[in-house]
Amino acid sequence: MRLDHVGIAVEDAGAAKALFQRLFGLPLSLERTVPDQGVKVVKLSSGESFCEFLEPLGPDTPVGRFLAKTGGGLHHICFAVPDIRAALADAKGKGVRLIDESPRIGAAGLPIAFLHPDSCGGVLVEFVERP
Amino acid sequence: MRLDHVGIAVEDAGAAKALFQRLFGLPLSLERTVPDQGVKVVKLSSGESFCEFLEPLGPDTPVGRFLAKTGGGLHHICFAVPDIRAALADAKGKGVRLIDESPRIGAAGLPIAFLHPDSCGGVLVEFVERP
Repeated sequence: MRLDHVGIAVEDAGAAKALFQRLFGLPLSLERTVPDQGVKVVKLSSGESFCEFLEPLGPDTPVGRFLAKTGGGLHHICFAVPDIRAALADAKGKGVRLIDESPRIGAAGLPIAFLHPDSCGGVLVEFVERP
Repeated sequence: MRLDHVGIAVEDAGAAKALFQRLFGLPLSLERTVPDQGVKVVKLSSGESFCEFLEPLGPDTPVGRFLAKTGGGLHHICFAVPDIRAALADAKGKGVRLIDESPRIGAAGLPIAFLHPDSCGGVLVEFVERP
């Protein structure tokens, strides 16, 4: 599995975008608000991977609660898989607790699903399907 | 700049290695104890990037203190740069607070340096020189 991106929770995705572009020259790949996930997403390219900044749309959202608890920073890692339903079934068969039993559509329009950190060594892990 | 790896602080790098190999099939790239940095390092390949597990050799080490404070998990991100001295000078010129003013040699035998999270949007950032 290829490391697709690192998710980073921030108060202000626009400010994080400007900072990482200025410091590290990362090109903008995607910028989108996803109201049903309560998040504004900004993705910057970094080689074949991405840095994904997540700004909560309010305090009572998953990223908002993470920010309140931790102050923000590294939030999750995402692996690209060719077939997300097969990857989820495989993980479940190995005893992983799934946050998303079925894939849903992420900010980039691709199927995604999250695995529970309790099953992944304390790391929140996402799959994204990139056929 | 290319995303080289994600650093993950864990109590037991061997257990994390076994878990991520079993769940995600990531091949082993490097396994080394670095006494002067107080850490055991296990790197697994994930596409052109790596997941790097960091196990502290004791509580009074940088990773040991991080574990005690947070319980572990995502610790830093690392960008590959062609010339680390030039990258550090550029970052310093842009006002970044450097943890390492000069590069030192990392677990893989390559020059590395860390940038302070206060200058990088709350994210601990590492550079590694890969010419």
